[in-house]
Amino acid sequence: MNAYLISIGDELLIGQTVNTNASFIGEKLTDLNIKVKKSSVIGDDENAILSEIKLADESADLIIMTGGLGPTHDDITLKTIAKYFNTELIMDNEVLSDIKEFFKKRGRELNKINEEQALVPKIAKPIRNENGTAPGSWIERNKKIFISMPGVPGEMKGMMENYILSKLIEIMEKKSVVILKKNLLTTGIPESNLFLALGDLDEILEGEKLAFLPNQFGVKMRITVTSNTQQEAEEKLSLIEQRIRLKVGRYIYGKEDETLESVVGRLLSERGLTIAVAESCTGGLISSRLTN
Amino acid sequence: MNAYLISIGDELLIGQTVNTNASFIGEKLTDLNIKVKKSSVIGDDENAILSEIKLADESADLIIMTGGLGPTHDDITLKTIAKYFNTELIMDNEVLSDIKEFFKKRGRELNKINEEQALVPKIAKPIRNENGTAPGSWIERNKKIFISMPGVPGEMKGMMENYILSKLIEIMEKKSVVILKKNLLTTGIPESNLFLALGDLDEILEGEKLAFLPNQFGVKMRITVTSNTQQEAEEKLSLIEQRIRLKVGRYIYGKEDETLESVVGRLLSERGLTIAVAESCTGGLISSRLTN
Repeated sequence: MNAYLISIGDELLIGQTVNTNASFIGEKLTDLNIKVKKSSVIGDDENAILSEIKLADESADLIIMTGGLGPTHDDITLKTIAKYFNTELIMDNEVLSDIKEFFKKRGRELNKINEEQALVPKIAKPIRNENGTAPGSWIERNKKIFISMPGVPGEMKGMMENYILSKLIEIMEKKSVVILKKNLLTTGIPESNLFLALGDLDEILEGEKLAFLPNQFGVKMRITVTSNTQQEAEEKLSLIEQRIRLKVGRYIYGKEDETLESVVGRLLSERGLTIAVAESCTGGLISSRLTN
Repeated sequence: MNAYLISIGDELLIGQTVNTNASFIGEKLTDLNIKVKKSSVIGDDENAILSEIKLADESADLIIMTGGLGPTHDDITLKTIAKYFNTELIMDNEVLSDIKEFFKKRGRELNKINEEQALVPKIAKPIRNENGTAPGSWIERNKKIFISMPGVPGEMKGMMENYILSKLIEIMEKKSVVILKKNLLTTGIPESNLFLALGDLDEILEGEKLAFLPNQFGVKMRITVTSNTQQEAEEKLSLIEQRIRLKVGRYIYGKEDETLESVVGRLLSERGLTIAVAESCTGGLISSRLTN
C-alpha cells in the first residue's frame, strides 16, 4: 500500500510552523509497512487543494490530509473535499453532541460557527476528536482511502492512535506483502569509504534496498527487504546482513536504535571492566553520555 | 515571485527526520516577499524527482531543491537534474579544490567518490559549500531559477546565507511588488468568536488577506497586503488595522512577536506598578514567564 500525505496551511509554507505532523504520520505508516511515496504542503487555497487531491488520488492508495478544518473563513479543506467528491456537507448529530460536550466541560458558549464544525462530507465516516472540536473524515472510494484530520498535532495524534492506526492494521493484515527493515550502525568510517568498501551493491542486495544515513556519530545502514512471506523476508534480510558484515563488519558496532555508549557500556560490564575518561575539547560529553 | 520547494530524501518520508529545511527556507523567502506556493517531500527516486521538477517548473518561478547530493548510490538528485535539463555533469575545478581543502583540513584521505562530488550540471553555476563537500547548483532557464542544495541543514543554511539570499534580494529589488504583513495578537477570545465579532470580512479587507493563527495563549491575526508602492501598501495596512481594532480592539494586546508577559511587564513598569502572583495549577508558569 502506498500513501500520499497532504498538509494544508499557510503557516507551514511561510515557515511559522515546522511540519512535525508529516514526520509523525510517516513514521507510523512506515511501521505498518505502508510506503509513503510523497508528502506535500499547500496553502489554504481551493485550487491548490483540489489539484493536490487529484494528484494524490492518481498515485496512491491512501491519502492522508491534515489541516484547514478550523472554524474561520481561511479553513476550507472540508468544503473542498466535498467539492472534489461531488458530495455535500451534512450535520452529524454525534459530532454535534461531542462539540456541545466539549464546550460544556470548558464552560464556554457554543456559537453558530462552532456548530458548523459538526458538518462532514455526506460520504464520509466522521472520526471523533477527543482533543478538540473539528471531526476527522474517513472516505473510501474506488478502493482508495481518503482521511482528513485537523492540523493541530494533539488532535491529529489522538485520531491516529484512537482510530486510524487500528483500522489500517486490519486492512494491512489482509494483504500479503511483508516488508522488513534492519539498521546496522557503523562508526569510524566516512559514508563514501563505507560505500566503496562494500563493493558491488547489486551482488549484495539482489534487488533489495540499502540506504546510508550519516549523522554526527557515524553512518547508519538501513536494509529493507520485501517479500510475500515472513520467512522468506527474514532469510533475505539475514543473507544481506551477512554479506555486509563480511565486507565492513569491523566498523559495525550495533544495530537498530542502540547507541555507541550503550554498546561500550554493555561490553565493559560483560567483561567486568571500568573506564576512565580524560576529556578536553569534548567538555565532558563522553562522560555524560556514558553516565546516561 | 512564486516558489516551490522540493525536499528529497527517504529519511523525511519515513519520519526519521523532521523537515526543518522547508520551514527555514519558507521563512526566509517570505521575508523577501516571495510567495511559497507549495512544498513537497519525495524519495530518492529518479521518476519521482523528474515528475516533481516538471510540476514545479510548470507552476512556479523559483524552484528550490534540497537533499540527495551525498556520495552514495541512493543520492541521485544531480544526475536527475542533469537528465531533466538534458545536460551533462562536468567536473568543476574550483569545487574540486574546495573539496581537497576540506579533506586536508580534517586530515582525511580523498577517494574517488569524494572527487565525484565536484561534478555539477554543465549549465549550472556551482554554489560553494563552506560546511561540507557537496556543492549547490544555481540554474536559470526560461526566466525560472532552479536551486539545488544539500539536505544537511548546516550546509543548506550556509549556502542560503552566504550566497542565495543576497542574489534573491537583488532579483526582488528589480520587481515592483510590495507585500507587507502585520500580526495583531489577541487573547481572551476563541477563534470562532473573534471571526464572528469581525463581521463582514470583505468590507474590512477589500481583497487583501487575513489569517487566523491560534495557539495556546490566544489567536494571532496576520494581515497581508500587496501593492505596487510602499506607500500604498502601508496605507492599506493601516486602514485594515484600524477597521479590525474598531471591531475587536479590546482583545488585542500586542503586535508582531510581542509576548503577553512582555506587554504586561511594560504596562506595569510604565505605571510604576508591581505584580503579585498566586499560582496553583499553573505551577509557577506565570511567575516564570513574567520573570523572563
